[in-house]
Amino acid sequence: MDDLSKPEPAARDPRPAPDDNTPRAVAARLAAGFAATAAARDEAGGTARAERDALRASGLLALAIPGEFGGQGADWRTTLDTVRTIARADSSLGHVYGFQHLLLATVRLFARPAQWQPWFEQTAANRWFWGNALNPLDTRTVAEAVPGGRRFDGRKSFCSGATDSDMLIVSGHKPEGGLVIGAVPTRRAGIRLLDDWNNIGQRQTDSGGAVLDGLFIADDELLLDPGPLSTPFACLRPLIAQLVFCNVFLAQAEGAVEAARGYTREQTRLWPGSAGPTVLEDPYILRHYGDYFAALEAGRVLTDRAADRLDEAWARAETLDEAGRGEVALAVATAKVTTTRLALELTSRIFEVAGARATTAALRLDRFWRNVRVQTLHDPLDMKLRELGNWALNDRYPAPSFYS
Amino acid sequence: MDDLSKPEPAARDPRPAPDDNTPRAVAARLAAGFAATAAARDEAGGTARAERDALRASGLLALAIPGEFGGQGADWRTTLDTVRTIARADSSLGHVYGFQHLLLATVRLFARPAQWQPWFEQTAANRWFWGNALNPLDTRTVAEAVPGGRRFDGRKSFCSGATDSDMLIVSGHKPEGGLVIGAVPTRRAGIRLLDDWNNIGQRQTDSGGAVLDGLFIADDELLLDPGPLSTPFACLRPLIAQLVFCNVFLAQAEGAVEAARGYTREQTRLWPGSAGPTVLEDPYILRHYGDYFAALEAGRVLTDRAADRLDEAWARAETLDEAGRGEVALAVATAKVTTTRLALELTSRIFEVAGARATTAALRLDRFWRNVRVQTLHDPLDMKLRELGNWALNDRYPAPSFYS
Amino acid sequence: MDDLSKPEPAARDPRPAPDDNTPRAVAARLAAGFAATAAARDEAGGTARAERDALRASGLLALAIPGEFGGQGADWRTTLDTVRTIARADSSLGHVYGFQHLLLATVRLFARPAQWQPWFEQTAANRWFWGNALNPLDTRTVAEAVPGGRRFDGRKSFCSGATDSDMLIVSGHKPEGGLVIGAVPTRRAGIRLLDDWNNIGQRQTDSGGAVLDGLFIADDELLLDPGPLSTPFACLRPLIAQLVFCNVFLAQAEGAVEAARGYTREQTRLWPGSAGPTVLEDPYILRHYGDYFAALEAGRVLTDRAADRLDEAWARAETLDEAGRGEVALAVATAKVTTTRLALELTSRIFEVAGARATTAALRLDRFWRNVRVQTLHDPLDMKLRELGNWALNDRYPAPSFYS
Amino acid sequence: MDDLSKPEPAARDPRPAPDDNTPRAVAARLAAGFAATAAARDEAGGTARAERDALRASGLLALAIPGEFGGQGADWRTTLDTVRTIARADSSLGHVYGFQHLLLATVRLFARPAQWQPWFEQTAANRWFWGNALNPLDTRTVAEAVPGGRRFDGRKSFCSGATDSDMLIVSGHKPEGGLVIGAVPTRRAGIRLLDDWNNIGQRQTDSGGAVLDGLFIADDELLLDPGPLSTPFACLRPLIAQLVFCNVFLAQAEGAVEAARGYTREQTRLWPGSAGPTVLEDPYILRHYGDYFAALEAGRVLTDRAADRLDEAWARAETLDEAGRGEVALAVATAKVTTTRLALELTSRIFEVAGARATTAALRLDRFWRNVRVQTLHDPLDMKLRELGNWALNDRYPAPSFYS
Repeated sequence: MDDLSKPEPAARDPRPAPDDNTPRAVAARLAAGFAATAAARDEAGGTARAERDALRASGLLALAIPGEFGGQGADWRTTLDTVRTIARADSSLGHVYGFQHLLLATVRLFARPAQWQPWFEQTAANRWFWGNALNPLDTRTVAEAVPGGRRFDGRKSFCSGATDSDMLIVSGHKPEGGLVIGAVPTRRAGIRLLDDWNNIGQRQTDSGGAVLDGLFIADDELLLDPGPLSTPFACLRPLIAQLVFCNVFLAQAEGAVEAARGYTREQTRLWPGSAGPTVLEDPYILRHYGDYFAALEAGRVLTDRAADRLDEAWARAETLDEAGRGEVALAVATAKVTTTRLALELTSRIFEVAGARATTAALRLDRFWRNVRVQTLHDPLDMKLRELGNWALNDRYPAPSFYS
Repeated sequence: MDDLSKPEPAARDPRPAPDDNTPRAVAARLAAGFAATAAARDEAGGTARAERDALRASGLLALAIPGEFGGQGADWRTTLDTVRTIARADSSLGHVYGFQHLLLATVRLFARPAQWQPWFEQTAANRWFWGNALNPLDTRTVAEAVPGGRRFDGRKSFCSGATDSDMLIVSGHKPEGGLVIGAVPTRRAGIRLLDDWNNIGQRQTDSGGAVLDGLFIADDELLLDPGPLSTPFACLRPLIAQLVFCNVFLAQAEGAVEAARGYTREQTRLWPGSAGPTVLEDPYILRHYGDYFAALEAGRVLTDRAADRLDEAWARAETLDEAGRGEVALAVATAKVTTTRLALELTSRIFEVAGARATTAALRLDRFWRNVRVQTLHDPLDMKLRELGNWALNDRYPAPSFYS
Repeated sequence: MDDLSKPEPAARDPRPAPDDNTPRAVAARLAAGFAATAAARDEAGGTARAERDALRASGLLALAIPGEFGGQGADWRTTLDTVRTIARADSSLGHVYGFQHLLLATVRLFARPAQWQPWFEQTAANRWFWGNALNPLDTRTVAEAVPGGRRFDGRKSFCSGATDSDMLIVSGHKPEGGLVIGAVPTRRAGIRLLDDWNNIGQRQTDSGGAVLDGLFIADDELLLDPGPLSTPFACLRPLIAQLVFCNVFLAQAEGAVEAARGYTREQTRLWPGSAGPTVLEDPYILRHYGDYFAALEAGRVLTDRAADRLDEAWARAETLDEAGRGEVALAVATAKVTTTRLALELTSRIFEVAGARATTAALRLDRFWRNVRVQTLHDPLDMKLRELGNWALNDRYPAPSFYS
Repeated sequence: MDDLSKPEPAARDPRPAPDDNTPRAVAARLAAGFAATAAARDEAGGTARAERDALRASGLLALAIPGEFGGQGADWRTTLDTVRTIARADSSLGHVYGFQHLLLATVRLFARPAQWQPWFEQTAANRWFWGNALNPLDTRTVAEAVPGGRRFDGRKSFCSGATDSDMLIVSGHKPEGGLVIGAVPTRRAGIRLLDDWNNIGQRQTDSGGAVLDGLFIADDELLLDPGPLSTPFACLRPLIAQLVFCNVFLAQAEGAVEAARGYTREQTRLWPGSAGPTVLEDPYILRHYGDYFAALEAGRVLTDRAADRLDEAWARAETLDEAGRGEVALAVATAKVTTTRLALELTSRIFEVAGARATTAALRLDRFWRNVRVQTLHDPLDMKLRELGNWALNDRYPAPSFYS
């Protein structure tokens, strides 16, 4: 082993310079603030209003909006990198911040320019936060045709980020069959958010229920042209959702290992009989960290590659074909499988290099696993594996759906 | 697949008949009561006084005490079976109840008959609950020789089950070197329990700290003959501790799978595109359950075999030799490795057959993983694997220590 | 670590005493002889005539035949233990020797006493070796009704142990539907064994093809009463087949680890930078061996438990009910899942504790993996996991089939 | 599932167009030829003279040599891509072909321009194949100083690619301490190749022994300036060796899965009771292929990234610093860990989607596992994990050695 008496290495994730205003630096400063209260807010649950306002103030909510509409015009790789940075500190905020970009992409992909352009402009100008009430498997909301639009009545579950949002994406089922999606101000009459999310992880995603009671959504607020699951380009939407998740899973694993590392370096005691003279040279502990690192690296390169493929497909816009969309789907599904597994494993294993005392509730280090455990249940991993198998064995791209 | 339209199978763990007073039946009735409040008590933390009193009232605290001293004279297989039954419902109670038998074994193994026989009698007569303040790696307590005994001063951590206990096993370090252990009434002057245990799992084990301030322990309360880590028979003590843990790990995995099963059968929805006509025939869900079952079965047979080997060694008492003790150590270490791994894996994986809605905090299904995660950190699994390797490669039995 | 300068431990599998004529001792002596030539015979392939004759001479072919018919009356636990002992040295011989007992059980289970009793007597008296040409998935053989019996025409694959056998179990498909099985002298006219087995493992099982050309099987040679897959007792047959496999898988893993152990102890060199002063104390190498040992122990206890359950069910004979048969099926399937996985893993991993030089063709240490890889493909593990899942989730016993 | 009645997808690895002379196309044509005889040559062992001559004729031996010296000036990413293409068909040839580039890099990195430049020119002009007799752990060869050079006497093991080579890299230990390396024509007096390689895998790598008997190596044939393990740039050499291995491991896994895929599509039969209407839709088979694909993708992106990092470091040449070298080392070690594991797993698992009949010796599908099993033993994976752990925990780059 090399000489551990050498001076301490510099911290690997130094705070960005105060005048560094790149998206990553802005996100890193926000994340540092969020990290300080992440454990306490995990305990409290509820809406992270102060942190959501900090996200509004940072300008990052418009990061992916093209410059002509007042945003920063960042590509997906850059945008998702900030999601990962935020999620490393707090995966609930990573989720709702990632969904901000997903929901903007939703209107871009499903609606006409005359619709999404003003929404983009207003989002950038007014720092709107978008929330989600689009849950296609929840069929309890009916969207009946009425003069000038549709009237939505019923219930929705898993409305992540709806509380404290400015705009809401809402879906309903048409009595005549089929899903219809609209975008409305959250404060519109007929929307009641239940604020009833209280789950074992992702506790500040506000993923509770909503009651829609005579909610009117006008025709020009409905996302009908080209609509969901229509063109290959529009079919990028579920892939963006999945890729946001990949970044959140990966980020939680990274955050967990980084927390464990701090603990091992500062607090963990050498076990009697260890083959290493110090904890930092214990061969078993080093091997565990080596395992973690290799897993994280695989997750990082696969997730970043998927973002790059998404950017290429995004640039092709309406000219994107099924094969082009299919390549993104494969890259995203691969990243999903890999990050799901590594995140579940690492967030559970980190305690083995920290020791029993690291289970104190004061640290709440279990939150990484709890967050990953909840978020990875969004849709079954088995289905993703089957899709990849259908490619590997049969050369069939994943069939677009709200989960693929 | 066979016909699922057949009538529902009977529940597999029926409640015992009211007049069944076997230890397993008594434990099962207690467990049913504990299960009803386990989630709420996991949230609350603190001391489970009502449940501890129910254990006292059940007579099970004297289960392993020989009949001549007022107990039921159960062997280890039977005794640990009741630990598993209790722990399936509530692993904190499983732990402290398991430690009751460990601590009685401690005085049996380390002290003279003139010491342990009255303690056994009083335990059976008065339904004493024993608590633990023996933590050999915590060297902050000094046990100085004073006339007629030793005076203990300092602190102890991880004093599981000390709160609400009647008797306490306490260890200290002699200024002249070496560990000394005593047994004293918990209420004796000089003992202050901090009640400061607040960890992410095993939340009602009261494993907090203690302050010893001039605690006097008389010579005939000290466990000196033969003392800890002395004869092969005395060296069974750490193996009993480890085997209590194995039963708790396994029981939590069993409890988790049983909880998941109930959820899958009653609440889980078929995923779109599933290859099974119903959730109960979905090939991926069935395969997961098959995996769980095979893992649990391995855990069960290895844990029960270790109990049988312990019973054989226990019967040999002072005639037990190093090889006899070594065989128990191998069986226990094998059970430890197996149950640790399966319990960590299954308590995390169960959500995959239940789905996202099973993460509601109302169910607190994460408690199984949290309990296992905390308890399995008692001592490093890597060391157990190394011990087994030293046998497999070098024919060396595990060297007795407080963890082996 | 403990002191490795102590005298060498005694060999763990000492040769049995010359006057020890227990089945295990007899098998161990045979195995020692087989082991000496196992690598060479793996290379050569073909029929192990000398070794098969040694099995005949040993009397073990009649081990499970009740004493009243001239055998030793051993139970399944004892019988399968000798299979494991043989297979540890040579898995091809383990397979054909295990199938000897399976095929005798087949006539016991499927035929009338007036049929199997003479076969049992002649087998014991004449040291008959039984071979297998029962492959229910291979439908190329037609068994047409002719006066006094049936005429079999067609081909069979995977006829393990047919070459050099004295009796043969043959199956065919009735033109009118259904499988029919007969027992005939291997030398009967109409049977041509192709001796064309040349596969990557299990190379001396003679599992080649057969051509049946006008083979006449008389009515009293057909196993019709109660016939295959009939009563719960008759349905034990596939479970015996599976349990023979479990013992062979496990034995190969044991043999592989034992071979690796010898190599590590005698030949493996300490890697530069190892944390251990010697190879035998290297923490990584010890951990690997610990892993192997824990896995093998799980395999051993589960396999032995399945044998015990089989013995219990066997003792119930015609009174065995579906639940009783189902319990055996669960125990066997659990053993199958566990031994399959551990055998594949360990036979591949052993090289990691031996090093590159252990890959010399002179040792042919790859044969363990090759043997296991071939044999474990008999029927899909996924199906076994699904069966276990159907029990764990739905309380349904495995439905009897030729593979379950 | 999507519609499998659609027309067959095009083959995924089409043969390159006849006029495509990119390195990948040239390598692909060679590989197609090698694949046709790979199984037969695996059985035969020995030197693949015809195939080595085909490599010579292809010009690929000079692929990485800069244009100014007569080569094609390919970067590492391109060069290693051809290694992978060759190794997908035949891992022995992939190994010796990869070592060609490694050995040229060795003289580039360890010697003076006045030395390596002529060697480069002659290699390109004469299509020299380089062989390896550099085994630093084998200390049996002494290199004594004599006038004008050194005299090498002793033995070497693991001399991959030495037979049929034109030039040989030879190492010896100086009596005064330290390793010395020289480059000499293979036919020089004093070199005797034993051609005694007969191992379970990598059977045509000619990795046998050599006897050096009075071999004279002149001063200007010794690689002394800067010599091995000297500058950070020179320390790239072991990383190139490791990265060649990564590509070979990955390629064997790819080749194995591709072989399995062909078998599944053409030969595998649907198992009774499968949940899929056809083998190609069986949910378990699809899931296995999905697993394989995700693993291969991780291997591919990590291996390619390591090549890119190597190219960046290579471009910095003598200005490369320890951190720059360290980043390559981390990327390579990560690829090593990942490809080792996936290659061992996939080459064993492929049989599960093919079935028992795929074990016929005619296909020799076990060769993928045998090749990977042998090659991955070059140096212990545990050490790589420890190195990665030392970075992850302690921010220490891997210390350069002949294996890191």
